[in-house]
Amino acid sequence: MPQPGTGGSRVQPAGGFGRRLAEAVVTKRSPVCVGLDPVLDRLPPGLVEAARRRYGRSFEAAARAFLEFGCAIIDAVAPLAAAVKPQSAFYERYGHRGVWALGETVRHAHRRGLLVILDAKRADIGNTSEAYADAAIGRSPLPGGRLAAACGADAVTVNPYLGEEALRPFVLQAAALGKGLFLVVRTSNPGSDEIQEAPLAGGGRVCDLAAGLAARLNALAEGEPGSPAPGPDGVRHRGDLGRTPGTGPCQPGYGPVGVVVGANRPEEAARLREILPRAWFLLPGYGAQGAGAADVLPFFDPDGLGALVSASRSIIYAFASAPTGPRQGGPPPYALAARAAVERMLFELQAVTARYPR
Amino acid sequence: MPQPGTGGSRVQPAGGFGRRLAEAVVTKRSPVCVGLDPVLDRLPPGLVEAARRRYGRSFEAAARAFLEFGCAIIDAVAPLAAAVKPQSAFYERYGHRGVWALGETVRHAHRRGLLVILDAKRADIGNTSEAYADAAIGRSPLPGGRLAAACGADAVTVNPYLGEEALRPFVLQAAALGKGLFLVVRTSNPGSDEIQEAPLAGGGRVCDLAAGLAARLNALAEGEPGSPAPGPDGVRHRGDLGRTPGTGPCQPGYGPVGVVVGANRPEEAARLREILPRAWFLLPGYGAQGAGAADVLPFFDPDGLGALVSASRSIIYAFASAPTGPRQGGPPPYALAARAAVERMLFELQAVTARYPR
Repeated sequence: MPQPGTGGSRVQPAGGFGRRLAEAVVTKRSPVCVGLDPVLDRLPPGLVEAARRRYGRSFEAAARAFLEFGCAIIDAVAPLAAAVKPQSAFYERYGHRGVWALGETVRHAHRRGLLVILDAKRADIGNTSEAYADAAIGRSPLPGGRLAAACGADAVTVNPYLGEEALRPFVLQAAALGKGLFLVVRTSNPGSDEIQEAPLAGGGRVCDLAAGLAARLNALAEGEPGSPAPGPDGVRHRGDLGRTPGTGPCQPGYGPVGVVVGANRPEEAARLREILPRAWFLLPGYGAQGAGAADVLPFFDPDGLGALVSASRSIIYAFASAPTGPRQGGPPPYALAARAAVERMLFELQAVTARYPR
Repeated sequence: MPQPGTGGSRVQPAGGFGRRLAEAVVTKRSPVCVGLDPVLDRLPPGLVEAARRRYGRSFEAAARAFLEFGCAIIDAVAPLAAAVKPQSAFYERYGHRGVWALGETVRHAHRRGLLVILDAKRADIGNTSEAYADAAIGRSPLPGGRLAAACGADAVTVNPYLGEEALRPFVLQAAALGKGLFLVVRTSNPGSDEIQEAPLAGGGRVCDLAAGLAARLNALAEGEPGSPAPGPDGVRHRGDLGRTPGTGPCQPGYGPVGVVVGANRPEEAARLREILPRAWFLLPGYGAQGAGAADVLPFFDPDGLGALVSASRSIIYAFASAPTGPRQGGPPPYALAARAAVERMLFELQAVTARYPR
């Protein structure tokens, strides 16, 4: 388990986020993202009790339990998942101790070769957005002038209500550092229709405005330093995975701005893909929230890419519904159950996605 | 300056948040909210340099500088302001150290008798919203069963894009603990029209949907435990400040759910007041963002209440444009400049708001 206090920046791999994500999905042969949603009363009781004995009934105990749990899950799923998605809220619930555990969990995921999408759904205006971008994916100025990463995630989820202009600081930071963002377009909750599905006077719905906003943010990122240079044909192929255009199937050029669409909304796929032919779709809600492989299939693009399918509770709490035997050395049983759950999920996805990259 | 590690919960004063805010405004004779937006390169250089000497070029140094700065501003403005509004982003920029400084700043504001509105613009779905509500205004479950507050703010700003249902956990937490929330309806940034002003097929604009959502959340809070009992006439007078209905001017009953509207949007006042006759309007952007007293006047209700006017940079960085002499003991010059800036703001507001409570 990592120890606190190392902090600081890390060198980012070359290439834009859209391309890095495509590489991870192709390399791992997996469009799976594992959501880390730690809730104290759903964690293995022995793990929580051990933290309580050592750190008392304290925020510190909760944070230590989350870190141990998250790291073990990460170790178990790293070979099978392209990314992890820690949900900031569950860590923030334990104040600065929780945020410490979040940062250490992110660093551990990076050590295991996973991309990290911080699910924080941030948005604000002007220099406040800059601060949020620094906090999640960027680097923050220190006294004396040095820069260092606070969280250092590879991407962050953002909220569209304040408009494109308010999100530009995220895009500039993302483009400069090879990071990404996922704009919330259509959420999985039952009450989401209220704003997102409201019909507009000019046709379409409010969530279409958000999708259009994501498209424009990607166009904005095109011109930023850090975005890949044009290929030999003068065209930017940001996600072409090193293939020379014209010599074979060219991967689509995914920009750094993706969208979040609930995995339980297959009816949205065709229309949103039309607005966003070259964006990554982050699809949370697979498993515990009711979506299955057939629901996410329509979101994949013709190259079998462009969709990152996220499951949280059905993976990290799989141990509760399928208890394994007592620990015999090696990974803890809850981590083995999580790995088995990802394997099942991959099998389900591969059964329906014929064009899935293998 | 407070020391770290005390953490824990505090007993909340009785009464709903809307009423507590009304009491603070009437008692202080001030509808002023001071925004705490600490940015390292705008802080007094001597303060930052002292932190750097003691804590190095580190997140810790930034966090310590923010805490010292925030506490001195709070000490200076406490008699003149109803509330402070720390902006979470600027603290999050420094990771867990920054979040520690935020928590200590909140506790210091409470010790000085100020209400604290955490500006975090959170929203998510289901149990994630619960976690955000716990983190900002509620109490979090600890290993072994105890509850303790992470941030312990009195209110938090939230985002409407995910709909009413997604925000219910915030309302339930607020109603149970006498806390509040401010729903973002209309922001001050130039690009905010894109979503917020989009005309709807059924008439009105998207931000009207958000305003209606705030009204319904307030209605939801009515029935929750913790909301004040009906008065002797059987009617709930949640903000009546102890006056008996029928014996004098009855203060309006403000619920725990207010709205955020940019102070530079006076044209919104009449329409939004119609939708929300009994809600608190938090009006950020006074001063540095260009809004003046005449702009916020239309938001006050007939009782001279219902509007909380927030200024950040024009107050906390007033020292930079109006340098004071060297320190002669007593509060630091930047704090005195902040107090003078609040005095000017109050004078401007009182000059135009004839019905202002005195």
